Amino acid sequence: MYRTHTCGQLNLSHLNTNVTLSGWVQKSRDLGGMTFIDLRDRYGITQLVFNMEENPELCAQARKLGREYVISVDGNVIERSSKNLKLPTGEIEIKVSRLETLNAAKLPPFLIEDETDGGEDLRLKYRYLDLRRNPVRNNLMLRHRMAQEIRKYLDEQNFMEVETPVLIKSTPEGARDFVVPSRMNPGQFYALPQSPQTFKQLLMVSGFDRYFQIVKCFRDEDLRADRQPEFTQIDCEMAFVEQEDVLNLFEGLVCHMFKTVKDLDLGSIPRLTYADAMRLYGSDKPDTRFEMLLTDMNHLVKGHSFSVFDNAELVAGIRADGCANYTRKQLDELTDFVKRPQIGATGLVYLRYNQDGTLKSSVDKFYSEGELKKWAGAYNAKPGDLILIMAGAEEKTRKQLNELRLEMGSRLGLRDKNIFAPLWVVDFPLLEWDEDTGRFHAMHHPFTSPKPQDIGLLDSNPKEVRANAYDLVINGTEIGGGSIRIHSRDVQEMMFKHLGFTQQEAQNQFGFLMDAFEYGAPPHGGIAFGFDRLVSIFAGLDSIRDVIAFPKNNSGRDVMIDSPSAISDDQLKELKIQTTI
Amino acid sequence: MYRTHTCGQLNLSHLNTNVTLSGWVQKSRDLGGMTFIDLRDRYGITQLVFNMEENPELCAQARKLGREYVISVDGNVIERSSKNLKLPTGEIEIKVSRLETLNAAKLPPFLIEDETDGGEDLRLKYRYLDLRRNPVRNNLMLRHRMAQEIRKYLDEQNFMEVETPVLIKSTPEGARDFVVPSRMNPGQFYALPQSPQTFKQLLMVSGFDRYFQIVKCFRDEDLRADRQPEFTQIDCEMAFVEQEDVLNLFEGLVCHMFKTVKDLDLGSIPRLTYADAMRLYGSDKPDTRFEMLLTDMNHLVKGHSFSVFDNAELVAGIRADGCANYTRKQLDELTDFVKRPQIGATGLVYLRYNQDGTLKSSVDKFYSEGELKKWAGAYNAKPGDLILIMAGAEEKTRKQLNELRLEMGSRLGLRDKNIFAPLWVVDFPLLEWDEDTGRFHAMHHPFTSPKPQDIGLLDSNPKEVRANAYDLVINGTEIGGGSIRIHSRDVQEMMFKHLGFTQQEAQNQFGFLMDAFEYGAPPHGGIAFGFDRLVSIFAGLDSIRDVIAFPKNNSGRDVMIDSPSAISDDQLKELKIQTTI
Repeated sequence: MYRTHTCGQLNLSHLNTNVTLSGWVQKSRDLGGMTFIDLRDRYGITQLVFNMEENPELCAQARKLGREYVISVDGNVIERSSKNLKLPTGEIEIKVSRLETLNAAKLPPFLIEDETDGGEDLRLKYRYLDLRRNPVRNNLMLRHRMAQEIRKYLDEQNFMEVETPVLIKSTPEGARDFVVPSRMNPGQFYALPQSPQTFKQLLMVSGFDRYFQIVKCFRDEDLRADRQPEFTQIDCEMAFVEQEDVLNLFEGLVCHMFKTVKDLDLGSIPRLTYADAMRLYGSDKPDTRFEMLLTDMNHLVKGHSFSVFDNAELVAGIRADGCANYTRKQLDELTDFVKRPQIGATGLVYLRYNQDGTLKSSVDKFYSEGELKKWAGAYNAKPGDLILIMAGAEEKTRKQLNELRLEMGSRLGLRDKNIFAPLWVVDFPLLEWDEDTGRFHAMHHPFTSPKPQDIGLLDSNPKEVRANAYDLVINGTEIGGGSIRIHSRDVQEMMFKHLGFTQQEAQNQFGFLMDAFEYGAPPHGGIAFGFDRLVSIFAGLDSIRDVIAFPKNNSGRDVMIDSPSAISDDQLKELKIQTTI
Repeated sequence: MYRTHTCGQLNLSHLNTNVTLSGWVQKSRDLGGMTFIDLRDRYGITQLVFNMEENPELCAQARKLGREYVISVDGNVIERSSKNLKLPTGEIEIKVSRLETLNAAKLPPFLIEDETDGGEDLRLKYRYLDLRRNPVRNNLMLRHRMAQEIRKYLDEQNFMEVETPVLIKSTPEGARDFVVPSRMNPGQFYALPQSPQTFKQLLMVSGFDRYFQIVKCFRDEDLRADRQPEFTQIDCEMAFVEQEDVLNLFEGLVCHMFKTVKDLDLGSIPRLTYADAMRLYGSDKPDTRFEMLLTDMNHLVKGHSFSVFDNAELVAGIRADGCANYTRKQLDELTDFVKRPQIGATGLVYLRYNQDGTLKSSVDKFYSEGELKKWAGAYNAKPGDLILIMAGAEEKTRKQLNELRLEMGSRLGLRDKNIFAPLWVVDFPLLEWDEDTGRFHAMHHPFTSPKPQDIGLLDSNPKEVRANAYDLVINGTEIGGGSIRIHSRDVQEMMFKHLGFTQQEAQNQFGFLMDAFEYGAPPHGGIAFGFDRLVSIFAGLDSIRDVIAFPKNNSGRDVMIDSPSAISDDQLKELKIQTTI
């Protein structure tokens, strides 16, 4: 037997017990005639003590142990003379009587400490060592705990966990598929699912009533810091529901998670329409940890010979509380920030409401003090505040103001990772125009139901059609999205037509689903949460990579196992494919 | 709101309540002035009643509803005059005041009843309708319940659920991989995992201590009834354990499952060495629901001029209790059974121990009554028993006797699906000789540790080296298998050498694991259970297909979505591959 206890378990109640422990050498210290070793495992750290006078041979053996050696010891639990009350095991130590080295360890390429000296590439290559570090393992522990709590909640709500297939069919809709050549069906390919969307809808047709799955999904996209080719969704679907039913049930899930995992009472989750989100925040995923709403001011600024404002479709701004003392340099920084190509603004107008009650603006040669007073009034500004104003085409300007708002929120410390502001954004548009392809795309996906009262607009004014679609946003990050689905063949066919599918294309790709709708499909809807993102938000992290045990890098490579890699000619031959590079 | 209650919820306690229900029309009956409809959902069936006299319009509307129509009704809960006490809702019915058809339904291609008239192909094509049938949905419900209980147990035992990657690296060891061309790394491929083996071992190196995952795995093999290209494993690993620790912990899991899911107390699970299993049952996965052990009789039969027995390496048989009255025809059937090419025996010798105490054998011209008495004695036979004897090369004969034993067990009704006989088979050989490739293969996999006391035999007598490897067998089906792993680079390198890897090949394919062993790898071991098989055993089914929501057929096709399928030339071009058919 390798151990009677873990390294996090022993305390004063175990005094004089003979124990066996196993673990890793965290560090060792030689103090005169004594050698102390911190023995580490997942559960904690226990101090081992060796006495040169009492057992010189054993002590000499202990002094040879290096960092990260795996050892097993027998010993007796004794009280420490110098206690460490920060550790649960800090009042005891083990007087060792037997020491066995289970495995030696080379010097790790970086420090296995909370703060490490290893760069990202090195830590990815030796991911199994990085995972030994407490902060990294704690992220994975959190992920485990959250997965258990999610399932517990959904199981209690009568959701059935059903595994949907991973080897499915490629469809041109949406992002790029990963494909898998079929040896038994030469020339044909499976695809890996971007989501189990059609299968969960079929389960509703089957009368499963409530389905969920925590499931891997796949997208062959060019990667960013928060994208991975494989990612995990909490995928859910319900029958006989309207939007309100779905929102209420999953509000329950979100509140349950915050309560059980972070001991936070959320209360209820506010709701905002897509239209209001765009108007007030310039974003469909606003960070609502802070106010700083967009204020429209077309009615205040037009007709004063300032052509930038006169020619703009929208003039609007935000109020940065207490920033009237921003220096010229700080204001220039902000101007540079909005002029970056990623944001693309042409400039930034400011209005300082100084502490002494005077007003100063970069455009005060066009506007009188009285006019500026009116501006300040529109923003409910008080002395000491700064107003930042942008102008241009409406949609673009709102998005630019959103970026500026987030930047100001960060500068003002209003985006605390320990504060959580969830929000439902509802009433998304059904369709969005895609300039590249010159056709409409489904904003959520082609199975999303238009609002019944808006169906009449589909032909006359498709952009105005709203969907029964909703997103869950937390702290400015989209964590989940869903919709009430189409459940009739006619509406689904009409939808595909509006998305530019021929009848034949629609039938080839989604015929099985439309056929299913003809055999008694119930009204249904659902939601999917990005599990990686949810965990990273809970962990206070910026990237999902930190909550994935074995992530891939930005080229889609696993640098630890060196994958992807070439395969043998025999494999290619059996699969009846060849590479063309 | 589509419903206030489900169709399985209402009873006499709800009398006079106004309710809204939604569901499917299971069947309808017109009786004089009344129309009765059974409304079905996942939770049950509730009877709706329409009265032609009271509301002729509504009743006429109800009479137009077809099977599987999806409807919603408002009504009042009333007591039934003719009660059905078999149903939880059988004492009440709903007097309907409003009826809405939510979706019409075409006539299903087969009956949606517990016993259906649909053939397998048709039911796979319309799997979403087959899933509506109670027995099929109940299998999936069982699967859900088992998944929750497994996670609950393992979570309580401090196991961490960790998701390992699906896009990994192809290795020639083991079965054939499914591969995924990488667009971002042209000419290179990911592979889908046959198991998360190396990743779970790395997690042990990381100090995760206890890991589990219920995870999809993939094998591109030619399919049989109980194989699927994608299947689900309960994958587990523990650090600082010996074989005994693993067996004890997972015996706990198996007992927990039988207790919580089937309310069965298993007690402890018996253990049998591989050598004993082969000797006593002729199989490493014996069905221990019944005895009928193999009895060796070389010492009784040699030297009596019966050349078949004299020339055989092994003569052995089984005792079929109470079968002495088998007719000539029945015995011929058994002879034909063992002569089938799948079994390949040359013949079958019998010995009847008649009720009157006389003995009759097909070889009694070679053996005296006294000799035959000794045979009967060796089998502990009693009057009325039948002894069936086979002869030939030892290994082959034992396997043939295993087949005969299972056949006799079935004929005698000894293989009751409601009886569960789990068994640990331990001490598997480390290696097995493969005639085709002319080299040794790892019987479990190349990461399995030889028993320390047998390592010396690796060079001199590799066949005799036993592994710290174990299988869980239930009712003659292998449900799980695992081992204590190698955790040192030297032993792993030696193992690869014995499996015919060059040092370069070993390093290319598994270098990351052997490197990891040098940074402080703890002793570790684990197990993986076939979740599909475990569920099918619990459900009393023969095929795993019945416990998978969307299975593939024997050609690896999903006939419902028609996958695999051709992909577009653009996709092939982007992936830099082409097909060669």
